[in-house]
Amino acid sequence: MQKKSASAPSTLNTQPKNNLVVPEPIKKFIEAFSRLPSIGPRLATRLAFYLAHLDRTTFAELTKAWAGLTHLDRCEQCFSLKDIKLKLCNICSDPQRNKTIIAIIEKETDMLSIERTGQFKCNYLILGELGDRGSLESNQKLRLEHLKKRILKDFGGKIKEIVVALNPNTFGDFAAEIIKQEFKSLAEKITRLGRGIPTGGEIEFADEETLGSALERRN
Amino acid sequence: MQKKSASAPSTLNTQPKNNLVVPEPIKKFIEAFSRLPSIGPRLATRLAFYLAHLDRTTFAELTKAWAGLTHLDRCEQCFSLKDIKLKLCNICSDPQRNKTIIAIIEKETDMLSIERTGQFKCNYLILGELGDRGSLESNQKLRLEHLKKRILKDFGGKIKEIVVALNPNTFGDFAAEIIKQEFKSLAEKITRLGRGIPTGGEIEFADEETLGSALERRN
Repeated sequence: MQKKSASAPSTLNTQPKNNLVVPEPIKKFIEAFSRLPSIGPRLATRLAFYLAHLDRTTFAELTKAWAGLTHLDRCEQCFSLKDIKLKLCNICSDPQRNKTIIAIIEKETDMLSIERTGQFKCNYLILGELGDRGSLESNQKLRLEHLKKRILKDFGGKIKEIVVALNPNTFGDFAAEIIKQEFKSLAEKITRLGRGIPTGGEIEFADEETLGSALERRN
Repeated sequence: MQKKSASAPSTLNTQPKNNLVVPEPIKKFIEAFSRLPSIGPRLATRLAFYLAHLDRTTFAELTKAWAGLTHLDRCEQCFSLKDIKLKLCNICSDPQRNKTIIAIIEKETDMLSIERTGQFKCNYLILGELGDRGSLESNQKLRLEHLKKRILKDFGGKIKEIVVALNPNTFGDFAAEIIKQEFKSLAEKITRLGRGIPTGGEIEFADEETLGSALERRN
């Protein structure tokens, strides 16, 4: 459990006529769950009734899975979520991975996308989601400091590569610049993900910047 | 909590490459929650990480709302879910409603849709979802029997109207016929929802049966 609270306001107000007929526990469920990402009041309502109709065993299984989320904390090396019972996360404790190549990413789901390619058997640093203020939060600066110290202590002051895998937008570009400055003496090379036309994308609809990058990086 | 179990199989297998890197509690959450309706493995994954990052207070609020779903049982008159603390559901206990008009519906969410129109201040009987076997389940037959007895006992053997608000498809039509036969002496009239072109719909794309009904019921 980390610090970050659900942000969207309650949207139950969109169904005022049902407020009186819905049982109180269902109403409270809808209010709370419609604030979650990708779950609006409509899906929350459907879920509430679906869950309320489940047999006890199935509901208990879901409750157990739900409660399991409290058994997580952060990996002390890469700051990704890990099972509270383990010392390091599954990736940092994997001896098969190249520890001298580290991808700096925003969040665990980005890591999953990268892992899904099967092409990157290296390590990560989870930076946390970039805000829209164009600067790093103190918490994020601390994580970079921690990585610097690790490189100095465990790798004799230099690792092979830092892949700055932040989203290719203004804030990602800004943070990438900071990271490049701070780590220039600590890695043989500092790279970013290649930009270009996505597979299956159409040249006709590519924005100028993407197409420009694709031309620059033609191969 | 009623009897009905989650049916869709686990679909976590679509992301085999991530199985080893995802912490165990997250993996279990994804497995369990991707079986819920409208929540596939992608949304379950997103939710898992979102929830795991929430602050303790917000997570505790959601957990409370979740656990609240165990405080429900069925209204003894209409069989809809109700707060376990109340004797009857909010609708059956509402003195402002016309108790001699009863809509027979499949599920609570259909009731919410009807309530949203603001045009039906009457009572309901929740029949339970119609299977695809073309016959009523024993449980559904019992609910109809219960309604019959109520009409005989509380309304002197006849109510004003039964609105058979079942979905307009083969199974709904079949069940509606059964209900019409069984209740013909117990209600002044037995109606179904009008069929026709939905508001905002296009005649060009209406199927033959819908357009046929719309022509028949032209007004």
